[in-house]
Amino acid sequence: MLEASCPTVGVDVGGTKILIGLVSGKGEVLFSRKYPMRRENQAQAEEAIFSAAGDFAAALKEHPELPAPAALGMGAVGHMDPEAGVWLHSYNIPVQTPIPAAERMSRLFGLPAWLDNDVHCAALGEGLYGHGRKAQCMLYLNVGTGLSAGILQGGMLLRGADNYAGEIGYMDMNCDEGGQKLEPAASGGGLIQGALELLPEYPGSLLETAWKEGNLHSTAVFEAAGQGDPLARRLAERAVRYLGAAVCNLMAVVNPDAVVFGGGAIRSPGMLEQVSAYTAAHCVGETYKSLRYIGLSALNPAETGMIGAAALAGFGLSGSMRARP
Amino acid sequence: MLEASCPTVGVDVGGTKILIGLVSGKGEVLFSRKYPMRRENQAQAEEAIFSAAGDFAAALKEHPELPAPAALGMGAVGHMDPEAGVWLHSYNIPVQTPIPAAERMSRLFGLPAWLDNDVHCAALGEGLYGHGRKAQCMLYLNVGTGLSAGILQGGMLLRGADNYAGEIGYMDMNCDEGGQKLEPAASGGGLIQGALELLPEYPGSLLETAWKEGNLHSTAVFEAAGQGDPLARRLAERAVRYLGAAVCNLMAVVNPDAVVFGGGAIRSPGMLEQVSAYTAAHCVGETYKSLRYIGLSALNPAETGMIGAAALAGFGLSGSMRARP
Repeated sequence: MLEASCPTVGVDVGGTKILIGLVSGKGEVLFSRKYPMRRENQAQAEEAIFSAAGDFAAALKEHPELPAPAALGMGAVGHMDPEAGVWLHSYNIPVQTPIPAAERMSRLFGLPAWLDNDVHCAALGEGLYGHGRKAQCMLYLNVGTGLSAGILQGGMLLRGADNYAGEIGYMDMNCDEGGQKLEPAASGGGLIQGALELLPEYPGSLLETAWKEGNLHSTAVFEAAGQGDPLARRLAERAVRYLGAAVCNLMAVVNPDAVVFGGGAIRSPGMLEQVSAYTAAHCVGETYKSLRYIGLSALNPAETGMIGAAALAGFGLSGSMRARP
Repeated sequence: MLEASCPTVGVDVGGTKILIGLVSGKGEVLFSRKYPMRRENQAQAEEAIFSAAGDFAAALKEHPELPAPAALGMGAVGHMDPEAGVWLHSYNIPVQTPIPAAERMSRLFGLPAWLDNDVHCAALGEGLYGHGRKAQCMLYLNVGTGLSAGILQGGMLLRGADNYAGEIGYMDMNCDEGGQKLEPAASGGGLIQGALELLPEYPGSLLETAWKEGNLHSTAVFEAAGQGDPLARRLAERAVRYLGAAVCNLMAVVNPDAVVFGGGAIRSPGMLEQVSAYTAAHCVGETYKSLRYIGLSALNPAETGMIGAAALAGFGLSGSMRARP
């Protein structure tokens, strides 16, 4: 169990926007601002991030009524070295040369600062402020465009040797069939890709209409499946089976008492209910008995990245990560 | 990275024998004794364990030249509550009524004492004294009669909510095929069971001879597979494919820099080499890059349980578990 900590600053660097906020020790957003992101090249990306941070640091000083933050956390997509506070690499945002992001944030705000990837941050946010707060051990699954996970036991996130832990999208769910990975079957991006590949086999599918209208996403797949569309059913059933089996496997490995889902795709109509039902039917009894919660994240989806980054700072202060600067 | 600690006592309670030893901070067995185990019922099992412990405690006093142990660890098969130090339940050894084993050991030796299951202990032994010592994050796999794992990051073992973490035998490796679990395919017990089920389909198989001679175990399967026996090849190839895919999946989840195998079955001729080759061929590149070691445990197989139990005490002293008494 984790105790709520002091207010911290969370910086969420996304592909199109940067969200920065002051977050209370209970996870409430006390003050926040949104900035445009730029990603034509690394220099512009850095300029966008650190000028936004500079603006927010100045804004905090203009609001002396707000409580002073004790630390800062930053989350973004890519490969991070959380111990060094360095953003090593990213495809989505053009980072080819490592950025000492924690150190630069630390100087801008005069605060200790930490850095991790977006899904690790989201898991920490859920752990500190959400359904993980009362859990001994939480499995957090982000089911969005891609698929990844965070495993939290007590105050510690499983990061692995190089901070790659949680890359569950690569799990092989059918090793007898020459290998079939989880992410292409059960992520939002995988559902779209699967629909596009199979559309020629299903003329007249509701997903063809959705595609023509620019609405082909996981919600459309689960809606059409609910209406009995054969292609959509095939895709939705496979997504549920793969994700359900993966959750059962991870529960056997991790023995969590909380399984929390974040991300956009899992909010497709019926998906979470069906995955939960698969898990209840297939998970090994002793492991399933430990489960106290399985369901959606408690955090506002629009603010999960920022709140998670603030939680990263809270965990940093708690000593579960090496302090900086 | 873990520092070697003080000498500790390790108590390994097996189905047929109890092994107790004084183990140095580097994992060397300084002094040990073997006692017969009894398991007709719980009372006799407890009598065997605690009278053996009493004898060992007295023997230590008769050897003042030995360094004094700082703590005691006990490992056994079954469901343990390591925080409470209570052996909750076991099938192999008849434990129906919880045994406050750590408290009783603590009183007998006048030392703080800890308790965990045998595979968690083996993983901790590998972490403190073996190939996990220099690892940031270790995945330990026990491939014996059954299959289970220990995941160690820094000084912390992933135990989960109820100490069931690591039950990888339940992983479903073929969710499209109605579910095919890892343990029946890739454990020593699973290989024997699989051979017995398929023997009628393969008259004249070398495994039939092995079975008649009372030699049907995983070594016989891999030996016969090496000689081209069709049934043995089918079983061995499936075991390698399932275990290899499971290792790849666990590497994606955990991102270890060391993957260490213990247990008897993995020592079947060629099995480890084939599983390692599968992993090298199928594991996701970024995850595989983190790997510094994949191979057999550094510990003497005959003493792994005892050394692991001693390591449990070392971890206990390090503060990674709540102190006791």
